Amino acid sequence: SRFEYVRDFEQRDVLIPETYIVVRIDGKKFHEFSNYYKFEKPNDMRALKLMNACAKNVLLQYRSEVILAYGESDEYSFILRSDTTLYNRRIDKISSLFVSLFTSQYVMLWSKFFPNDPLDVKHLPFFDSRCVSYPNLKCIKDYLSWRFVDTHINNLYNTVFWQLVQKCGLTTREAENKLSGTVSSEKQEILFSECGINYNNEPEMFKKGSLVTRKGEILHIDVIKKIDELFEGY
Amino acid sequence: SRFEYVRDFEQRDVLIPETYIVVRIDGKKFHEFSNYYKFEKPNDMRALKLMNACAKNVLLQYRSEVILAYGESDEYSFILRSDTTLYNRRIDKISSLFVSLFTSQYVMLWSKFFPNDPLDVKHLPFFDSRCVSYPNLKCIKDYLSWRFVDTHINNLYNTVFWQLVQKCGLTTREAENKLSGTVSSEKQEILFSECGINYNNEPEMFKKGSLVTRKGEILHIDVIKKIDELFEGY
Amino acid sequence: SRFEYVRDFEQRDVLIPETYIVVRIDGKKFHEFSNYYKFEKPNDMRALKLMNACAKNVLLQYRSEVILAYGESDEYSFILRSDTTLYNRRIDKISSLFVSLFTSQYVMLWSKFFPNDPLDVKHLPFFDSRCVSYPNLKCIKDYLSWRFVDTHINNLYNTVFWQLVQKCGLTTREAENKLSGTVSSEKQEILFSECGINYNNEPEMFKKGSLVTRKGEILHIDVIKKIDELFEGY
Amino acid sequence: SRFEYVRDFEQRDVLIPETYIVVRIDGKKFHEFSNYYKFEKPNDMRALKLMNACAKNVLLQYRSEVILAYGESDEYSFILRSDTTLYNRRIDKISSLFVSLFTSQYVMLWSKFFPNDPLDVKHLPFFDSRCVSYPNLKCIKDYLSWRFVDTHINNLYNTVFWQLVQKCGLTTREAENKLSGTVSSEKQEILFSECGINYNNEPEMFKKGSLVTRKGEILHIDVIKKIDELFEGY
Ligand SMILES: Nc1nc2c(ncn2[C@H]2C[C@H](O)[C@@H](COP(=O)(O)OP(=O)(O)OP(=O)(O)O)O2)c(=O)[nH]1
Ligand SMILES: Nc1nc2c(ncn2[C@H]2C[C@H](O)[C@@H](COP(=O)(O)OP(=O)(O)OP(=O)(O)O)O2)c(=O)[nH]1
Ligand SMILES: Nc1nc2c(ncn2[C@H]2C[C@H](O)[C@@H](COP(=O)(O)OP(=O)(O)OP(=O)(O)O)O2)c(=O)[nH]1
Ligand SMILES: Nc1nc2c(ncn2[C@H]2C[C@H](O)[C@@H](COP(=O)(O)OP(=O)(O)OP(=O)(O)O)O2)c(=O)[nH]1
Ligand SMILES: O=P(O)(O)OP(=O)(O)OP(=O)(O)O
Ligand SMILES: O=P(O)(O)OP(=O)(O)OP(=O)(O)O
Ligand SMILES: O=P(O)(O)OP(=O)(O)OP(=O)(O)O
Ligand SMILES: O=P(O)(O)OP(=O)(O)OP(=O)(O)O
Ligand SMILES: [Mg+2]
Ligand SMILES: [Mg+2]
Ligand SMILES: [Mg+2]
Ligand SMILES: [Mg+2]
Ligand SMILES: [Mg+2]
Ligand SMILES: [Mg+2]
Ligand SMILES: [Mg+2]
Ligand SMILES: [Mg+2]
Ligand SMILES: [Mg+2]
Ligand SMILES: [Mg+2]
Ligand SMILES: [Mg+2]
Ligand SMILES: [Mg+2]
Repeated sequence: SRFEYVRDFEQRDVLIPETYIVVRIDGKKFHEFSNYYKFEKPNDMRALKLMNACAKNVLLQYRSEVILAYGESDEYSFILRSDTTLYNRRIDKISSLFVSLFTSQYVMLWSKFFPNDPLDVKHLPFFDSRCVSYPNLKCIKDYLSWRFVDTHINNLYNTVFWQLVQKCGLTTREAENKLSGTVSSEKQEILFSECGINYNNEPEMFKKGSLVTRKGEILHIDVIKKIDELFEGY
Repeated sequence: SRFEYVRDFEQRDVLIPETYIVVRIDGKKFHEFSNYYKFEKPNDMRALKLMNACAKNVLLQYRSEVILAYGESDEYSFILRSDTTLYNRRIDKISSLFVSLFTSQYVMLWSKFFPNDPLDVKHLPFFDSRCVSYPNLKCIKDYLSWRFVDTHINNLYNTVFWQLVQKCGLTTREAENKLSGTVSSEKQEILFSECGINYNNEPEMFKKGSLVTRKGEILHIDVIKKIDELFEGY
Repeated sequence: SRFEYVRDFEQRDVLIPETYIVVRIDGKKFHEFSNYYKFEKPNDMRALKLMNACAKNVLLQYRSEVILAYGESDEYSFILRSDTTLYNRRIDKISSLFVSLFTSQYVMLWSKFFPNDPLDVKHLPFFDSRCVSYPNLKCIKDYLSWRFVDTHINNLYNTVFWQLVQKCGLTTREAENKLSGTVSSEKQEILFSECGINYNNEPEMFKKGSLVTRKGEILHIDVIKKIDELFEGY
Repeated sequence: SRFEYVRDFEQRDVLIPETYIVVRIDGKKFHEFSNYYKFEKPNDMRALKLMNACAKNVLLQYRSEVILAYGESDEYSFILRSDTTLYNRRIDKISSLFVSLFTSQYVMLWSKFFPNDPLDVKHLPFFDSRCVSYPNLKCIKDYLSWRFVDTHINNLYNTVFWQLVQKCGLTTREAENKLSGTVSSEKQEILFSECGINYNNEPEMFKKGSLVTRKGEILHIDVIKKIDELFEGY
């Protein structure tokens, strides 16, 4: 029709060849969402397992393209082979289809992990998504390490913070002040001395995040120690 | 951490100001999906109403930014105000959040429209998404007209085709041949003379697609006739 | 050859249709360049006329695509029709060919305007270039107005500043301090009372910049007053 | 001023880190240009030496960023280090400044190589320019090999073609037909048997193109044989 010229306004950006592609999705306003559905603080095992289940299913559907996936909190990163030609490496396609499939899984599987908390149509989960391209093994390893370190830092902080609030009765303001400026070891010390908790005994999933392998296994491992192994062959 | 440099690989493309933004989502492999869930051919009222319900909820959540939404088949277009500053007009954010919210709605509302056909985790719906920017009223109107004309052309063809197959017992090959090269009026004539169906009496939703207004009304109107009205004030 | 795959790494970005295109070029380190060739401060009539001559020749070579060009100091903006299909609206082509042709002209015509100062191969002029797309008449007019106001502001400041230094013997520091925080009228007043110069009598080219019309005329006019006229018919 | 919002329409695209950057410039309509200035066919030693001189000066000005440059015919490629942060890796800056400086050199140095053919302002040389990013050593080597092979293929063809026309009196059509479908060795054989010319004795610059090293040396070498050496340390 005489209207078809409007197609010419579409831009079909692609990621250059021979670069690893990361698709990272992140829950939209999960601060609110986690409050609404009363997630346990700071880590809700059900919520994390749900994220993992979704990621696993997404990965399996794109198995031949994905090297691994890694998740923590309300986010998941999918790392694609550098030689993938998925959707001709079009950014819009890759980014949107991953996030859409993930979301579909999340809503579908919700009731399995939260059997007593049906989703409310006014408070549905949704996720943003982005594609990033990394030109070499070193930097894609550093990408994964970045997310892993982030998991550790956030989890240690959040664990101590919420223990101080929930166990020791500090206000959130007081807990914040107490932790302000402390390094890792000091936080662990506070956790131990004031709350009687040894950080080492915290669940591995909380401390290390979750890594989904191409076989669909979900691991909670020291990513940095295993970084070379994880990318062997790519 | 020393890994944070990996953030510098992110590109945050934006759409230039003062342009209308279209977010168009489209069902991934809905040919298969519609077969798997035994959608009526060529139009399944339940499927279309489900799409409309999702679009309405997405639109209402972004009410202040959206002018209208228009859908047909497995796709929906959301037209955003030219002066929107939603997510600083970042392409990745707009595109991914719309498609993710739509998908969330789709899975959530599925059972309302398909009460007897629970979703199978191996065959979940998902959608691609893209953002396109249009610099003036004329071309954004032409965009909508393009989708409207597409609806008409596809629906007329599909209606006659499936009538010939289902009612008159033609093979799909025979139906294809019969319709090949015919113009609109000839297709209507075939439909009438061979299947006894007056195209004018087909459901408005099938013939005209669905338009969601900012108030959340769902209309099946001649978009081209009303095109100026629809964009009045924008 | 088996190496041709390297072409796939090229990205050929285009500017969306129906938008005005500005190509703005700007002299690279002209602070240094103007010192090296002893340009008169703050305005060197020869340098500005050279810029104008180059711009005129560039415009005439792309006459059918360009609406007008506007220059000041070491920069020039070429405004292209919104319906131009020049180089399929490819950014790299438009940006590079304009700046390259301009540079070619600049070196070629140099000796006409600086007959006694041959160019030194170690100190050659060169320019950066960018393409910007503007979706409507209002904003392309505002673009031109932006450059025009910039010309006025810079020129008034520079005129008073260098008069204070050259005529009144202030140090550059003293001149800077004296002008700091003053508004337009106060600057004109200082210029008049301290240096005996009426800003109104300054050359029009300095005060208003240079506008090249499609006919190749070079005008020094109040762009803002004439703004509607300038874009009549586009 | 109230017009400054127009800056928001600028897009400042960058090339992702840790990728080699190629800036390739190519003469605009040099078919015409070379005719107008009566370049010898198919290779004009003066024209090629002029290109080399320009490239050398550009490279030296950006010495710390450039690995090498390679040229043939009316084009030159500058290969930048993968860790360069030149202009924050902005595409518009890199692309435009390289082409502008090259053009400046070309016009400046013209008379040295064409002392008897002054440039005509109506027929000035200019160049297009593009930036391409390559993620690893392998593909940047293949890029250079691509240009080298192209040089060989074009030069062999052009050499035989023009010999057949100029020496043996064939029309251009006849020469074209004679060469159509021939492989490299056959072309060399035709050249030898019909024109008495041993391709091996052709000037190295014609056969191999010109490579500019970081020291500013200009070499005519078998790029493919030396490819690893050329990128040693990068
Ligand atoms: N209580 C609880 N909250 C969680 C859990 N996992 C994630 N969250 C919450 C904590 C954070 O507020 C939020 C994730 O942080 P983000 O930086 O992604 O912020 P948020 O999603 O609120 O905003 P965004 O839309 O991503 O900008 O999700 C959990 O297991 N338990
Ligand atoms: N039976 C039936 N099929 C429908 C209905 N709505 C959409 N579909 C099917 C018919 C088409 O095969 C398909 C939509 O066409 P598309 O061009 O979007 O293709 P598809 O989604 O298969 O592939 P894609 O992933 O979008 O490239 O969805 C419906 O109401 N009933
Ligand atoms: N003396 C003198 N200087 C001029 C004239 N026209 C331009 N210039 C100088 C004054 C400024 O320092 C410079 C233009 O300012 P820019 O902001 O473009 O800075 P510049 O070119 O130095 O650096 P850039 O490479 O553009 O970032 O050129 C003139 O007519 N006379
Ligand atoms: N006679 C002669 N011609 C040359 C020489 N070097 C380059 N040329 C001409 C031959 C080709 O027609 C032209 C280069 O081919 P291109 O593919 O770059 O085409 P051209 O520059 O005409 O068009 P373009 O603007 O790049 O698309 O330059 C030379 O040394 N002698
Ligand atoms: O979302 P944040 O704050 O963790 O940081 P970000 O995701 O990099 O920011 P954005 O979502 O705006 O890209
Ligand atoms: O999906 P199609 O075939 O209707 O056409 P398209 O959506 O424009 O193609 P793509 O999804 O590949 O952008
Ligand atoms: O060059 P400036 O400082 O006038 O400002 P700009 O040109 O907008 O900056 P850049 O050249 O870095 O785009
Ligand atoms: O210019 P050509 O024909 O050698 O091929 P190209 O340079 O890749 O084409 P373009 O200049 O249009 O990018
Ligand atoms: Mg975020
Ligand atoms: Mg979040
Ligand atoms: Mg998060
Ligand atoms: Mg499609
Ligand atoms: Mg589809
Ligand atoms: Mg479709
Ligand atoms: Mg600048
Ligand atoms: Mg400058
Ligand atoms: Mg300037
Ligand atoms: Mg070319
Ligand atoms: Mg050329
Ligand atoms: Mg060429």
